[in-house]
Amino acid sequence: VNLYLLRHGPAGDVGAWAPRPDSLRPLTKEGKEKVKDVAKGIRRHGLSFDMILTSPYERALQTAKIVAKTLGLKNNLVDFSPLEPGGDAQELIRELDRHGKKWRDVLLVGHEPSLSQWIALLTTGHPVGILEMKKAGLAKLAISRPVFGRCATLEFLLPPKYIS
Amino acid sequence: VNLYLLRHGPAGDVGAWAPRPDSLRPLTKEGKEKVKDVAKGIRRHGLSFDMILTSPYERALQTAKIVAKTLGLKNNLVDFSPLEPGGDAQELIRELDRHGKKWRDVLLVGHEPSLSQWIALLTTGHPVGILEMKKAGLAKLAISRPVFGRCATLEFLLPPKYIS
Repeated sequence: VNLYLLRHGPAGDVGAWAPRPDSLRPLTKEGKEKVKDVAKGIRRHGLSFDMILTSPYERALQTAKIVAKTLGLKNNLVDFSPLEPGGDAQELIRELDRHGKKWRDVLLVGHEPSLSQWIALLTTGHPVGILEMKKAGLAKLAISRPVFGRCATLEFLLPPKYIS
Repeated sequence: VNLYLLRHGPAGDVGAWAPRPDSLRPLTKEGKEKVKDVAKGIRRHGLSFDMILTSPYERALQTAKIVAKTLGLKNNLVDFSPLEPGGDAQELIRELDRHGKKWRDVLLVGHEPSLSQWIALLTTGHPVGILEMKKAGLAKLAISRPVFGRCATLEFLLPPKYIS
């Protein structure tokens, strides 16, 4: 399985958005443009996905929709609540394992620090802070068989300026 | 310190080169072109270096010279034997620490598996295999203070097609 992880694009200021629910905080106008550029870069580099799983939080969902639209994959996009902030990596691993034969290239759209913790967990066995994912940044893990522990190799970690 | 690590470009076949010393094995013609493209990409992305340390092995030295020439840094290029295959990371750390105040951005040009083991050592404390560096690929570590152990965050890992 090639597991791609994309962090949502730049969203509005947390403080200015409160007291409205953080789950509804959207991408800024510039954030949408940045995600569009990254989506075009993903297409230009010939990457595609069998399935796109996204956090249902607005800023992630908008990010995932832009990517799905750009790649013609609107029917392959599903909400996946373990991708919410603080979500459970074990559920994600089970989902990947369950669909392992059909899903060769899977894109996850979510949040920090969860995404970089998962990369650490799958490459080292420990969810420690080894790397930093920029907003609209993309990472790729090559996974032999998904397990809750060390099972992956990091193939790239791309800040948005290196994809778009 | 921003520590950049560049793997040498594609070199001639090991078997066909033998029994000549592996240290003299050069880049192929295509390897040189790939490194030139990456060097231009490094320049276009506005990266520069206070110092370039290279393995004295021919394929790494050629790679480092192409980058130094492209960036106008021929006078900042030095051979550094700990970057040879199987070199000692402790010597590298001491060298970085010694020049810490003058060197803000340092490029290392070397070999696998040493480069990815060093990235693992500096981000996790253990020289385990967590990632893969392609030939002519570039990685960036942000280091607070260089020590032999966990002291760095991986900021990017770029296969050559994402730099050039």
